[in-house]
Amino acid sequence: MAARKEKPAAPAELRTEVQEFKRRRILEEARELFFAHGYEATTLDAIAEALNVTKPFLYSYFRNKSEILNAICEIGITKSMQALDEALATKLAPPEKLRLIVDSVTTIIITNQKYIVVYTREEKNLEHKEAKYLIGLRRDFDQRLAKLLEEGAEAGDFDVEDSALTAVSISGLITWVANWFRPGRHVQTDVVSHTIRLVDRMVSKRPRR
Amino acid sequence: MAARKEKPAAPAELRTEVQEFKRRRILEEARELFFAHGYEATTLDAIAEALNVTKPFLYSYFRNKSEILNAICEIGITKSMQALDEALATKLAPPEKLRLIVDSVTTIIITNQKYIVVYTREEKNLEHKEAKYLIGLRRDFDQRLAKLLEEGAEAGDFDVEDSALTAVSISGLITWVANWFRPGRHVQTDVVSHTIRLVDRMVSKRPRR
Repeated sequence: MAARKEKPAAPAELRTEVQEFKRRRILEEARELFFAHGYEATTLDAIAEALNVTKPFLYSYFRNKSEILNAICEIGITKSMQALDEALATKLAPPEKLRLIVDSVTTIIITNQKYIVVYTREEKNLEHKEAKYLIGLRRDFDQRLAKLLEEGAEAGDFDVEDSALTAVSISGLITWVANWFRPGRHVQTDVVSHTIRLVDRMVSKRPRR
Repeated sequence: MAARKEKPAAPAELRTEVQEFKRRRILEEARELFFAHGYEATTLDAIAEALNVTKPFLYSYFRNKSEILNAICEIGITKSMQALDEALATKLAPPEKLRLIVDSVTTIIITNQKYIVVYTREEKNLEHKEAKYLIGLRRDFDQRLAKLLEEGAEAGDFDVEDSALTAVSISGLITWVANWFRPGRHVQTDVVSHTIRLVDRMVSKRPRR
């Protein structure tokens, strides 16, 4: 970013940035409305009004309300997959990879809490193809996590009885944070580090003190 | 039950049983319809039709659709609280109490899976008072579980860093089972015993082999 600031952004680049910003703002407002009133009760008019824009403006980014819901529901799992990719691409040993994954994904869940809650609530309103796609991504996440657990067990780092059940349990433990985390009552860094230690205990040969 | 069968049930008793049975059947059909089409899209007429009864029949059990949703959403947490009460009332040591709780509640989550999923999805459609009531029950469950963890830690049975965060994490791990359990693909008893062992690891001084 610092290097970029030395010269003004090229018009094409700036345009892309602005488009991404506008797209994100649409998703943020739609998320607030879906969270407060539900997907079915929220109209495109209401989203346009909240942003103080016209409906055609929305149509230049999303074909319909259904596409907005898709984009909202994809955020949590897409970011989690990126974090998983990045952690697995490191040269770290399995326990450190796992800690990095739990750290990143719990942080993603907390900072994207409302997106996750809307996904959980509105999954039934997704088109069948989109719902399947997201379930596939989540299954893929769990399978790759299970593979890491197996690798760690083979390397003698983990003590894991059933890698598939343990992986889906870890995913559940982390995802559920979106359900109970309250910004005023809980401290993000405490919850993240506590979750890392709980997951560590679930798979490690000896509990860490 | 065996003792009861020796003589015919008294009319008053039988009437209560039949009423409970009818009430449960209404909830089962409503749950199927809410699960498949969502609460908002499901009418009382559709519920009556699925049961092949009249709408006045439904009104003799529930004042409106909202009361049916309340009853559906209460099932999981009410049963879980009963299981918690029963386990805490035993003379068992904290680790055995905890295992009993995880065993019972995971079983409740699996056998009442669709009720839990409907609650998660439709929480926003609950009246404010009812939603608050259920959140209060869940918080109460977590607090009593946290207290058991503290008792076990004091007795030297558990190694728990933050009893409140650990309790809510255990609840999440168990509740999330409703989200991924698939009857054909997973075996209930395997999932229950695996969950017991994972929770055991989360709190025990030494992992059990």
